[in-house]
Amino acid sequence: MKLALQDDMAITNNDVRQLDRNYVFHSWSMQGNLNPLVIAGAQGCELWDYEGNSWLDFSSQLVNVNLGYQHPRVLAAMKAQIDELVTIAPATANLTRGEAARRIIELAPAGFSKVFFTNAGADANENAIRMARLYTGRDKVLSAYRSYHGNTGSAIAATGDWRRVPNEFSRGHVHFFNPYLYRSEFSASNEQEECARALAHLRRIIECEGPGAIAAILLESIPGTAGILVPPAGYMQGVRALADEFGIILILDEVMAGFGRTGSWFAFEQDGIVPDLITFAKGVNAGYVPAGGVIISEPIAHYFDDHFFAGGLTYSGHPLAMAAIVATLDAMKEEKVVENAAYIGDNVLRPGLETLAAKHPLIGEVRGRGVFQAMELVTNSQTKTPVGAAEMASIKFALTEAGLLSFVVENRIHVVPPCTISAEQVEKGLAIFDSVLSRFGGLVR
Amino acid sequence: MKLALQDDMAITNNDVRQLDRNYVFHSWSMQGNLNPLVIAGAQGCELWDYEGNSWLDFSSQLVNVNLGYQHPRVLAAMKAQIDELVTIAPATANLTRGEAARRIIELAPAGFSKVFFTNAGADANENAIRMARLYTGRDKVLSAYRSYHGNTGSAIAATGDWRRVPNEFSRGHVHFFNPYLYRSEFSASNEQEECARALAHLRRIIECEGPGAIAAILLESIPGTAGILVPPAGYMQGVRALADEFGIILILDEVMAGFGRTGSWFAFEQDGIVPDLITFAKGVNAGYVPAGGVIISEPIAHYFDDHFFAGGLTYSGHPLAMAAIVATLDAMKEEKVVENAAYIGDNVLRPGLETLAAKHPLIGEVRGRGVFQAMELVTNSQTKTPVGAAEMASIKFALTEAGLLSFVVENRIHVVPPCTISAEQVEKGLAIFDSVLSRFGGLVR
Repeated sequence: MKLALQDDMAITNNDVRQLDRNYVFHSWSMQGNLNPLVIAGAQGCELWDYEGNSWLDFSSQLVNVNLGYQHPRVLAAMKAQIDELVTIAPATANLTRGEAARRIIELAPAGFSKVFFTNAGADANENAIRMARLYTGRDKVLSAYRSYHGNTGSAIAATGDWRRVPNEFSRGHVHFFNPYLYRSEFSASNEQEECARALAHLRRIIECEGPGAIAAILLESIPGTAGILVPPAGYMQGVRALADEFGIILILDEVMAGFGRTGSWFAFEQDGIVPDLITFAKGVNAGYVPAGGVIISEPIAHYFDDHFFAGGLTYSGHPLAMAAIVATLDAMKEEKVVENAAYIGDNVLRPGLETLAAKHPLIGEVRGRGVFQAMELVTNSQTKTPVGAAEMASIKFALTEAGLLSFVVENRIHVVPPCTISAEQVEKGLAIFDSVLSRFGGLVR
Repeated sequence: MKLALQDDMAITNNDVRQLDRNYVFHSWSMQGNLNPLVIAGAQGCELWDYEGNSWLDFSSQLVNVNLGYQHPRVLAAMKAQIDELVTIAPATANLTRGEAARRIIELAPAGFSKVFFTNAGADANENAIRMARLYTGRDKVLSAYRSYHGNTGSAIAATGDWRRVPNEFSRGHVHFFNPYLYRSEFSASNEQEECARALAHLRRIIECEGPGAIAAILLESIPGTAGILVPPAGYMQGVRALADEFGIILILDEVMAGFGRTGSWFAFEQDGIVPDLITFAKGVNAGYVPAGGVIISEPIAHYFDDHFFAGGLTYSGHPLAMAAIVATLDAMKEEKVVENAAYIGDNVLRPGLETLAAKHPLIGEVRGRGVFQAMELVTNSQTKTPVGAAEMASIKFALTEAGLLSFVVENRIHVVPPCTISAEQVEKGLAIFDSVLSRFGGLVR
């Protein structure tokens, strides 16, 4: 089979799906029974295939297309960069890279001074952890059980040359329980209890692991794939205080929560704290070009003025990714995209989800901030028994059939449209939820 | 300072350098004394700054711009993809992704069936290692001391959710010595001895680590940053035989050596063997968009039809990266870029370097294949004492001043121009080497 890339007239969904199944190996799956959705094009918050079907996007793909699809300003900036200089190594000074870094520093809280660019979120976290370990001279990293920080874990250990040595840390990684009142690990019955007990637990983990051995606490500001677990009031301040008390670097992972998703540039702003390192990716350029990075506070940036930083990558600060960052951030500012996410979240999406929850006993809890919301589906509101995997797959299929792209994780629907979504589009999506969930009301026992 | 991106008239090198030093954190360095080269544009094998200086590229940046800079066909294909669909998640079926995977499979040896795409070489190796471990149910990975396989090593261990668990391997990584006759670890005096002893050493490592515990041997087909260490005849066949004997997956890292660099599509073709997994990045699209991946042989691809693959990433198969791959590979085929690399290597570059070596006692050895060559600089040809770091920095500086971008690692100059370089350009670069090395002849004792 030979397909001509530009000859759309001849292309069917089945052609593309068959090409995919013949040659492409997919993430996080068994390859045998995949039946991937075919997408031919997209604009704003809508996508379509080759045969006239279209979808409203309530997923932002992998919660990354914050600015929506095919934003003309970003596309134009990328084409201009392609004409100017499409690629250059990180060791050079590049204008677009400098402009991207400056914009990010201007958005960050006071006290941040430099940006280290990576290809995505995983290696953003890799390098933040590396910085914390080199800066503190300690090796342990604490992070939450309910978290996802990326899928890399071997390449530098497999590397043989000297670059392996400053990255060999023996005692490794320790996990703690983060707050999640709906399914409390701490037998808490309200937010205040959950907060206090989660902080006491984290303190005990620090004490038992040895504060002098702990380089960093790594935490998603709002754990994303884990369930959009908005921390209770006071928790983040408590974590910050523990980090300060024990000289531990606080790394906040804003890969999914950052760049407008929660209705502020960074999710942690709403908790009134400032971390030592911020990791980002996804929303920073809406995923138009793979990019991520670490925003580095002054003391750590300064430390590496005369200490060697033992990390790096070929595409750190890739000019095309940088052009997409510059244009995305400028567009977000001028078009008040973050303000839109806050407005839609507070006034349309969240109230709409609450209304659905009042109507559908299947919805056990609604939580989130901005356009970063989740509905937890349970068969019984007392036992909170999660809806099973097969039923969730059926619900996802029904939503797709009804024209809504959804983000389903375990027993949850993460409601994460682009930050540019309109009130009308949200209403349309909510109506689809309403209709589909009505058909699954029989799951409730 | 506010710089207008498009207003090149107003821009000076110093503006760009200052912007960089203010905001950008660099790979593998101390940040305090950096004085990065400013690059404003590039075409083919030449680059220039904002002030009329230009350079011939003998580095391909980080040995990745195999097709040269700003290839019009690739730029046009990228712009077309930008207009069609700039980003889409990996779970969908995407035409350009399928086309890219098909082209790579068609270039790979018989018996390879699928491609898993990543953002670069590090996560290509990550996922090849993951596949080998899941496929074999074993955990150890053997790799060479003289190697570089990427800088990632923590994110999945820091992750708390279930995706960590299938990626936790306890006994980890073991390193062996790979062949390098010029500085033999095996007291060998010729290639045949080096080969036999290196293979005997690898067998002993396998026996001592326990063959039943070893998932993979991971090896650069020609170790690159480690010194362009072309393996002696028979070594790669010997490694393949050891892997077969003990049921170990052979992963060949073609990140730097692949896609034309050595004068063949893959470096291992010249050794007459076929690995089980091939990792790639860099040259596959000349670095125009960050991309890498794993080419998967049929038995391993088939295994994952009904076994879960516990790996993935947001930008696996990013459409823009895929468009750059499709156009790069098509251009390389039609313009006979790989043939050019072979011709130039055999007939112009290598003979020219040999001539330089005969003239300059500073050059202890020349080695390589195609446009993947290295000169080892020594102060004494008997003791093989490496030229020191400060002197190498001076040589690099002098080359840059003379208009040649070079790739200097330890006491070596890696001679790695784009695969598109012409005989005239090679002669020009060789003349610069000749002139600069003449000025450093006093280092020889």
